[in-house]
Amino acid sequence: MVGDKLFEENPTLYAFLPLFYMVWADAVLTPSEITRIKKLLEKQQWLTPEEKTFLLSFLNPTSPPSPNQLKSWLKEIKKTSDYLSPEMKSSLVEIGIKLAKVNSRSGTEETINNARKPLEDIEKALGVVSRESAYHFNSLVKRTTEEVGTSSVDHNEINKILDGEDAEIIRKVKTLLQDPVFEYYKGESIHEYREQVLEWCKLLAQQGLGGIAFPKSYGGQGDMRKYFIVMETLAYHDISMVIKFGVQFGLWGMSVMFLGTEKHHKKYLKDIGSLKLPGCFAMTETGHGSNVRGIQTTATYDHNSKTITIHTPTKDDGKEYIGNAALHGQMATVFAKLIIDDTDYGVNAFVVPLRDAKGKTVKGVTIEDCGRKMGLNGVDNGKIFFDQVQIPLENMLDKFGSINEKGEFASPIASDNRRFFTMLGTLVGGRIGVPKAGLSAAKSGLSIAIRYSNQRRQFGPEGGEEMVILNYRTHQRRLMPLLANAYALHFALDYVTQRFLKRSDDDIQEIEALAAGIKAYSTWNTTHTLQECREACGGKGYLSENRIDTLKADTDIFTTFEGDNTVLMQLVAKSRLSEFKQEFSDINFFGIINYLTDQAKITLTEMNPIIIRNTDEDHLLDSDFHLNAFRYRERDILSSAAKRLKHYIDQGMDSFDAFNQCQYHLFNVGVAYIESVIMEQFVLKVKSLEEGNSKNVLKKLCDLYALATIEKNKGWYLEHDYMEGAKTKAIRRMVNKLVREVRQDAIPLVNAFKIPESCLAAPIVTRI
Amino acid sequence: MVGDKLFEENPTLYAFLPLFYMVWADAVLTPSEITRIKKLLEKQQWLTPEEKTFLLSFLNPTSPPSPNQLKSWLKEIKKTSDYLSPEMKSSLVEIGIKLAKVNSRSGTEETINNARKPLEDIEKALGVVSRESAYHFNSLVKRTTEEVGTSSVDHNEINKILDGEDAEIIRKVKTLLQDPVFEYYKGESIHEYREQVLEWCKLLAQQGLGGIAFPKSYGGQGDMRKYFIVMETLAYHDISMVIKFGVQFGLWGMSVMFLGTEKHHKKYLKDIGSLKLPGCFAMTETGHGSNVRGIQTTATYDHNSKTITIHTPTKDDGKEYIGNAALHGQMATVFAKLIIDDTDYGVNAFVVPLRDAKGKTVKGVTIEDCGRKMGLNGVDNGKIFFDQVQIPLENMLDKFGSINEKGEFASPIASDNRRFFTMLGTLVGGRIGVPKAGLSAAKSGLSIAIRYSNQRRQFGPEGGEEMVILNYRTHQRRLMPLLANAYALHFALDYVTQRFLKRSDDDIQEIEALAAGIKAYSTWNTTHTLQECREACGGKGYLSENRIDTLKADTDIFTTFEGDNTVLMQLVAKSRLSEFKQEFSDINFFGIINYLTDQAKITLTEMNPIIIRNTDEDHLLDSDFHLNAFRYRERDILSSAAKRLKHYIDQGMDSFDAFNQCQYHLFNVGVAYIESVIMEQFVLKVKSLEEGNSKNVLKKLCDLYALATIEKNKGWYLEHDYMEGAKTKAIRRMVNKLVREVRQDAIPLVNAFKIPESCLAAPIVTRI
Repeated sequence: MVGDKLFEENPTLYAFLPLFYMVWADAVLTPSEITRIKKLLEKQQWLTPEEKTFLLSFLNPTSPPSPNQLKSWLKEIKKTSDYLSPEMKSSLVEIGIKLAKVNSRSGTEETINNARKPLEDIEKALGVVSRESAYHFNSLVKRTTEEVGTSSVDHNEINKILDGEDAEIIRKVKTLLQDPVFEYYKGESIHEYREQVLEWCKLLAQQGLGGIAFPKSYGGQGDMRKYFIVMETLAYHDISMVIKFGVQFGLWGMSVMFLGTEKHHKKYLKDIGSLKLPGCFAMTETGHGSNVRGIQTTATYDHNSKTITIHTPTKDDGKEYIGNAALHGQMATVFAKLIIDDTDYGVNAFVVPLRDAKGKTVKGVTIEDCGRKMGLNGVDNGKIFFDQVQIPLENMLDKFGSINEKGEFASPIASDNRRFFTMLGTLVGGRIGVPKAGLSAAKSGLSIAIRYSNQRRQFGPEGGEEMVILNYRTHQRRLMPLLANAYALHFALDYVTQRFLKRSDDDIQEIEALAAGIKAYSTWNTTHTLQECREACGGKGYLSENRIDTLKADTDIFTTFEGDNTVLMQLVAKSRLSEFKQEFSDINFFGIINYLTDQAKITLTEMNPIIIRNTDEDHLLDSDFHLNAFRYRERDILSSAAKRLKHYIDQGMDSFDAFNQCQYHLFNVGVAYIESVIMEQFVLKVKSLEEGNSKNVLKKLCDLYALATIEKNKGWYLEHDYMEGAKTKAIRRMVNKLVREVRQDAIPLVNAFKIPESCLAAPIVTRI
Repeated sequence: MVGDKLFEENPTLYAFLPLFYMVWADAVLTPSEITRIKKLLEKQQWLTPEEKTFLLSFLNPTSPPSPNQLKSWLKEIKKTSDYLSPEMKSSLVEIGIKLAKVNSRSGTEETINNARKPLEDIEKALGVVSRESAYHFNSLVKRTTEEVGTSSVDHNEINKILDGEDAEIIRKVKTLLQDPVFEYYKGESIHEYREQVLEWCKLLAQQGLGGIAFPKSYGGQGDMRKYFIVMETLAYHDISMVIKFGVQFGLWGMSVMFLGTEKHHKKYLKDIGSLKLPGCFAMTETGHGSNVRGIQTTATYDHNSKTITIHTPTKDDGKEYIGNAALHGQMATVFAKLIIDDTDYGVNAFVVPLRDAKGKTVKGVTIEDCGRKMGLNGVDNGKIFFDQVQIPLENMLDKFGSINEKGEFASPIASDNRRFFTMLGTLVGGRIGVPKAGLSAAKSGLSIAIRYSNQRRQFGPEGGEEMVILNYRTHQRRLMPLLANAYALHFALDYVTQRFLKRSDDDIQEIEALAAGIKAYSTWNTTHTLQECREACGGKGYLSENRIDTLKADTDIFTTFEGDNTVLMQLVAKSRLSEFKQEFSDINFFGIINYLTDQAKITLTEMNPIIIRNTDEDHLLDSDFHLNAFRYRERDILSSAAKRLKHYIDQGMDSFDAFNQCQYHLFNVGVAYIESVIMEQFVLKVKSLEEGNSKNVLKKLCDLYALATIEKNKGWYLEHDYMEGAKTKAIRRMVNKLVREVRQDAIPLVNAFKIPESCLAAPIVTRI
């Protein structure tokens, strides 16, 4: 059937057929390799010269077999394949020998065995490539890569752990979002989109969600915690809606609530909560974003008329990016420098009308549309310029600073700056709402990408079914640590929320730093997660219908607004420096540094022989090891930053420059601190759970967060002799193991977010 | 004037005023710190009880000073400030003492000096915070942070190095793009946008740019190099236009050119080049993207009618994401499995009509619009389904496979797979065009972000001007290494292009791997760069008018199309494994591994004592050190991957599973190889330049690329004892130094790209 009499005369020659097939089939063989095979053949004593010439003719590059010839060889080879055990199928030699035997007459056993040695030599020379090509011949090989059995994890149980005491309000919001009126806007018109988003916000206000944090006397529930949960849950839907919601009820509403006094509450809060009075929060100026203390808009008080005049000195001082400004806002909380008799009393807040009820801008107010943005195009951001706009004195939000009857400025806080930062401090809730909304977007992205990757098949063993892409190790490496991050941040944000709600004067500084740090860390994680999700879904991830596009574009600005992340991390670091000062208040600054350094040295010395090279699985998965490693890093980076700062200052550098010199270092102080907080909270959460499958899988996620983070920072740990190379390598292997294991439960773990299908709305996963 | 007689009686008390000011001003002092200051005061023997009580009254939290009081203190303190030298201004103690002296009568010298000790104690206890707050009092402090003098770098000279021999065609394309007809489309209608992009492509075709790579006999210039340069330069403008251009002239045109024969060239090429015949490249199917060999569309030959029937078996087998399909394409190169007499001859290519000249789809063809995408919305991507569409035999693109007169399949390449990959190999140019276009987008982003950061001021020393944000260390750390990457990749892509243009059968496999790897590495770099640029520009970066939005969204898919990056890196790794096989063709696979391992060991032993802890600046900036480090890593990762693979296979794992187990490792093999190639080319380029400023600054960028990459991989180097912690720390410091230095020349370095202002078109930088 292979069509030559020599094969019939000496069936042993059949043993070479798989090899010849391979030469002309997929595996790339170079000319020098073909030469090598020729040489090996020529050495064989048991072949006749005629047979050698015949065999060599199969290797002639100038006369390759025809496609049909190649197909007939394959057909021949495959016949034998059924007689072979799976192990034998992975060897070209075994296949060849078997083929020869099948075609042989009796008594040729020895001749056939003669072929084994040269075949083995050739196979060795080809190495891995030959092994791989052997799979051409196997149509029924059983694969070991179908690794997903039935997960023992109950997504309902995990969902309960996630939702906790907030389950009821979460359920309410999710139910609401599934109403057909919340169908996504799919048109091209920004104008229509903005009106749709306003409409949605009105519906939410009707349900009492807008003013949920406002006092009961003004139509609210006085429940700040619920407000955060509402933000977080709404963020499974259109993010423009969440931001518009946050602008109206969080920024505009809460600036009146926290910076104003009873007269303002009475006058505005109810109408804000019902969205009868849409408003803005006008702080940022073109010239001053991060350095908001430097804003230039003026509010000049005239004691005769008891009025305040709001004015934008130059174009660069216009209020920019102001949500609700371009179209819908009727009033705004405007931040401006209060001037009384030519004296500047720092930044204060004022309620300023922008438009009448019909939408016409009032005299002196000019508003420009910010136009199309990367995302959040359902929010009407605008620029506002004030040309000598007069407001009555009562419009000053006077909780922290007021003008008395003598026309003098009065405040319980003497320093302008400290007063301003106290005012900002009351608004720090935005730094909790934003990362919570961002985390929800990341959860949506992970739900889409992980569910898709669990269906999408691509490549597979020759002759076998294609494999779901979530079974590929690189895919697991990309997505599973991000799933662990989502869980880690869920618990960490919950912790920060609780701390925020229970804050007092004693810990407010710590909590502000916590909120700043978690906002930065979490929103960067959202950007990173959604980028990976987009890529993990390939071309499907690029189609807008699958929503990763929008999730990503809408949340991209989260790393900038409510505080630029890089700037926030510096704040965290500065707070950490002064917090230590507090913790050791009876030793001086030098002492603190020495103390920290000594601490570090002692810890290191203690564990040196045992820990730094311990690669036992028990140890690597021990939460105490994780916590120690995170805390050690945090302390060491902090004390070395303090030392460097001191060094520069001692050299005569001024502090602004010294801080700039250490800026990258300080940035890492912030990150290390936040990672340490996240780690602690995750460990505490897992410890608090009842034994069972849910606890086990969350412990695995916790371990994955811990070890993937340590792996990310392994350069640092090795530099500081905290670990040896053998240990960091063992950690890498453990991360590989954990991503494989977590992958087994990945579907229930994303289902546990219970994101309504109508919100996910990605045809790649919801159409099935 | 501070308003109390005790000050007048004992002017020494003035020495405490700066301290009191600070307590109530910005610096955050905790209650325990105030307590501590109180205690220190109480210990002072030289103060009368009355004076102590008086001073303590300034620290009472229940009766803080009024804002006006605080302002009067500041006024008082500032008066003295003029008398102090800059160094003294950084000390609260010096300011206090001076203040006391200015207000004192004669003979109180000693009393004043008595105050020095307690003040110093307090300052020590407050550490850095006190130093910083001292700046409140200094309105005229000279800053050292204005670090940018006049750069000595000539951007014209650097531009010549970048453009090289291609300067003329680059200039031509840039001139063209500045014509007003190329004004960006700013409307909301996708339909209008697509028509605009088609119009632009027609204009480019009129200029002879479309068919520039086609033979002269068909209206072209036969210049493939120019084609790449055109793609690269067009990418300073709208990326949708570049992709539409690439689909028409690169994919559709070159598939006809490379896979077809003379009859096809005659019939189609001229009309393709002039855009008279818009067409598509229909390879990817919904079910098969990366694993394109598995596509299911069939092309069934009937020898009686000499026709081929193109058919889409199931919905999942439709051609998806096909550019030019939704609206404009009249024909397509369709990839389908050729079936003759029930035998499958693998994937071949056919020219299939889609629409008549009026735009009506032909019988049997159904086209769906892919709809809105994350970006590239000027390209009309569509899905194509074929329902038994008959085409004549001559429409088979028959360079690599044909059907002879007997109705038999004939091909110079016997194996279906090898034939298919050979066909794909001819189209590998896309893997050069795409990263080149992506790099141009990254250059646009860097030009915008760096120029903006050099103007944008935010924060600054107290009393000083705000500082340009590019002078912040974290900002430099974010952007300068990306600027170095852009230069590194520019030269590396140029190298790969040259190799590609001069390819032969001997090195085609190496070049395909090179192109795959550089495509993956470079497009990821584009995504990463534009993300950083967006964040570096803050809110301005989020506004679409500043174009980072579009640059980012349009290029995001570059990591997926022309081969998913993760998959491509695996290809690189596999190629590296087999290339070594080639390099050592007379030792077997085991031998290769041992050889590599021995090599590694020897290299390591040789340099152990000298190199691994060498932190001399000369050494750290030595290109040989860089090259050795990159190459060592590349070799070591490769040999350890080979060993792991062999280990798994020896254990009986089949090769598909073994490769999957090592997938993450193999991914790193690919990355390390590409980094090594980029490094080599950058070093060669710099060496080739004449001595001078341009060479110096490019050497700096080369060093920065080298050291920032080593820093990124420092965990690996430390794990493998290639460097000690002291050295990696020194490298971090050197990177910090280099980013500061490169920042000085950052403006000429982005200006050297010479991107037309009308293309950059970002108001944040072009309006000035």
